[in-house]
Amino acid sequence: MPEKIVIIGGGAAGPKTAAKLRRERPDVQIDLYTQEDIISYSACGLPYYIEDVIKNHETLILRTPDDFEKQNIHVHTKQKCLKVNTEEQFVTIHDLTSNNKYDVHYNILVIATGAKPLIPDIDNLHLKNIFTLRTVQDGINIKQKMLQSKRAVLLGGGYISIELLEAFVHNNLHVTLIEKNPHILKMFDEDFAERITDYIIGRNPGQVSILTNERVIRFEGNENNEVTKVVTDSGKVIETDFVVLGTGVRPNTDFLEGSNIKLGINNSIKVDKTLRTSKYDVYAVGDCTDNFNLVTNKYTWVPMGSTANKEGRCAAINIAGGHCLFDGILNSTITKYFDFTISIIGISYADALKFGFQPEYAIVTKRDKAGYMPETGTMTLKLIADKNSNTILGIQGIGEGEVNQRINTIIPAILSKTKLESLINMDLPYSPPYSPAIDPVLNAAQIIYQKING
Amino acid sequence: MPEKIVIIGGGAAGPKTAAKLRRERPDVQIDLYTQEDIISYSACGLPYYIEDVIKNHETLILRTPDDFEKQNIHVHTKQKCLKVNTEEQFVTIHDLTSNNKYDVHYNILVIATGAKPLIPDIDNLHLKNIFTLRTVQDGINIKQKMLQSKRAVLLGGGYISIELLEAFVHNNLHVTLIEKNPHILKMFDEDFAERITDYIIGRNPGQVSILTNERVIRFEGNENNEVTKVVTDSGKVIETDFVVLGTGVRPNTDFLEGSNIKLGINNSIKVDKTLRTSKYDVYAVGDCTDNFNLVTNKYTWVPMGSTANKEGRCAAINIAGGHCLFDGILNSTITKYFDFTISIIGISYADALKFGFQPEYAIVTKRDKAGYMPETGTMTLKLIADKNSNTILGIQGIGEGEVNQRINTIIPAILSKTKLESLINMDLPYSPPYSPAIDPVLNAAQIIYQKING
Repeated sequence: MPEKIVIIGGGAAGPKTAAKLRRERPDVQIDLYTQEDIISYSACGLPYYIEDVIKNHETLILRTPDDFEKQNIHVHTKQKCLKVNTEEQFVTIHDLTSNNKYDVHYNILVIATGAKPLIPDIDNLHLKNIFTLRTVQDGINIKQKMLQSKRAVLLGGGYISIELLEAFVHNNLHVTLIEKNPHILKMFDEDFAERITDYIIGRNPGQVSILTNERVIRFEGNENNEVTKVVTDSGKVIETDFVVLGTGVRPNTDFLEGSNIKLGINNSIKVDKTLRTSKYDVYAVGDCTDNFNLVTNKYTWVPMGSTANKEGRCAAINIAGGHCLFDGILNSTITKYFDFTISIIGISYADALKFGFQPEYAIVTKRDKAGYMPETGTMTLKLIADKNSNTILGIQGIGEGEVNQRINTIIPAILSKTKLESLINMDLPYSPPYSPAIDPVLNAAQIIYQKING
Repeated sequence: MPEKIVIIGGGAAGPKTAAKLRRERPDVQIDLYTQEDIISYSACGLPYYIEDVIKNHETLILRTPDDFEKQNIHVHTKQKCLKVNTEEQFVTIHDLTSNNKYDVHYNILVIATGAKPLIPDIDNLHLKNIFTLRTVQDGINIKQKMLQSKRAVLLGGGYISIELLEAFVHNNLHVTLIEKNPHILKMFDEDFAERITDYIIGRNPGQVSILTNERVIRFEGNENNEVTKVVTDSGKVIETDFVVLGTGVRPNTDFLEGSNIKLGINNSIKVDKTLRTSKYDVYAVGDCTDNFNLVTNKYTWVPMGSTANKEGRCAAINIAGGHCLFDGILNSTITKYFDFTISIIGISYADALKFGFQPEYAIVTKRDKAGYMPETGTMTLKLIADKNSNTILGIQGIGEGEVNQRINTIIPAILSKTKLESLINMDLPYSPPYSPAIDPVLNAAQIIYQKING
């Protein structure tokens, strides 16, 4: 009898694991169970579907259950995992269509159940047109409502809210974003969050409001139970046609209670570098696992589609008997607000202080190409280094110029703890259409080096 | 009496040295001598001025002699250095306007005389409308002639020829590029040079010819001594309105004969990491110096505007009593042919073999963004690694997609000799408008890792 691999979860990490495992091991039996009816989709693409730069939601689906069946991977949709019994190697599944429950035996289990929205404690959450965005169906619902609306309220100032803000502004809505913290995008330093806020407000004057230090306490509705007002703790009342809760997510791991699989930070699943859990025959991948931060050397929980894909690939190699280590992450994130890129790698200056580093920083605002070229864009970079070790701790980059090229340049330097001295004259390729003769990221490194080393 | 710093050369490195030195040391006397009448210009921008995407050549000039005078830096134009006497610390200058000669004493000398075109041995080089491109005046002359012409011939298949090809094609000329080697862009592997050639030919069918393995032996002219024909060793005769010799450059160091300043590869000036020459009180910066290649650990000569700027800055810091080391280069280069990026960092697979490495490579062709996003571009990357050390030796990248972001990501990895194992799951920031969930450069690293480590 072939070895039986059971995968729970159908977002990014589960299907990636299945597909890679099939390529590595044609002989094993692979069954994937998911509570949703759509699998293998890019949740990160949903804001662009809602914005309507992607017209059809099916474009976001990489592979259907039929595609998997052709690879001899059996996908079971609308099947929710209720329980894992690690002693006797089975999972209990709830068939959401027939309402039956049944057990499935495994030799190797892969948990890839992702994350689910964190719902804040607000009165009248039962009202209609209060959405969260996680699944394709969520995206379809929000887009449908947006197309009939004039006003929207976004709760929470994270990346998803910024992306939805673009979508709604592009579709001519008036939008209010409400953030309970002192600034949006909490992983950024306050000065950068303010620059981002200024850009967003300034791009479409009068169309966008961003409220910070403001907590929503109540929704109010009309006679049809549709949300019409959002009330904050300072007494502000915002009229709206719908609300999206972008107030964070948490690992989807409640069903592991009693399984003896060890959980870590935020109830994410503790995995080692091979993506194995505390149980030898159970792996976990994607948004439901914890992450090791290679800058702080501490465990954290940062759900990211790219990490999910890499972990899925890596776990599959290990399950197949190969060797792949997933060392950790750098909290690398990027998004855009129209033509304005927003990105951070590693940690902010504020976080560097919190983690006990002795940070120094440099901020540069530069053009992305030789100044005499047409169509240059500007960018602002904030580079953070540690005075003790003379190495980089992080970089924040924003602007209409080519930010991502500079941001990416810093990543292997953080990973390899490259000394500032080696970075300041780094041989980045130069040509007027691509950069100034001395690249902005080198300007930043030179300034920080001089600050630290005089 | 203040210390007297004399700088010879007015392209990029000399003016950069002067400006940085003035910021570091308000007290010293700085005199800059150049044989040209324009200083502090971007030679790298000249092809775009010729193409007419930059309308006015003055845009390429960063600072005028008057600008420098305001900083108390004395610029002497049309003053050619004939000789350096390192025993008695003076240079002999030829005033090209008055034809006088005179000596100038220095405490510290900085040589920044750059490079000059290498003129191949071809019959009838005296004919009119045979150009080289080095100075602003060269650019003005070529542009003027191009605007009256229908046909051009470019000799040599390096970056400048590719850039001029774009300029001429953009201005509707028919262009023949003649390369004596088996393929253009000799630092690239042949397969990549062929892909680039195919792109160039395919973009404007019938408008561009690229001849390889073809050596020009003779020019022919009309009764006005204007070039009209280019004759090759295989007997090809190409009719043309003008010719540009893009057949390389050599260090402009002939005037150092008898100075006892040590020369290195290709007669470039030997400098240490502080940019000091073999004479304690003489520095050299920019295209006239040799370079240490950090991949091969051998000396080389690669004149680049970015290196010139960094060396100028670094030398100024050292002259001012500070501390700056210029460790070396990675042969990093980038250019474009219209929307098609062409870039190489480190060494090619062919060169890796020549230098005694045990190279392995991976080639990937991928889209630059999530496949479902509008306006994705494709790119092809060739990553080269060393089997012995499991580290990266180089990367070649081409395509209409965002190549430079991927190329730059590899640079600190080469510098820091980061192991492939650390690279394959590197946390590059992901968002659908910026990259696929697993970035193409990681795909390449994963393939090469599997090839080497099974």
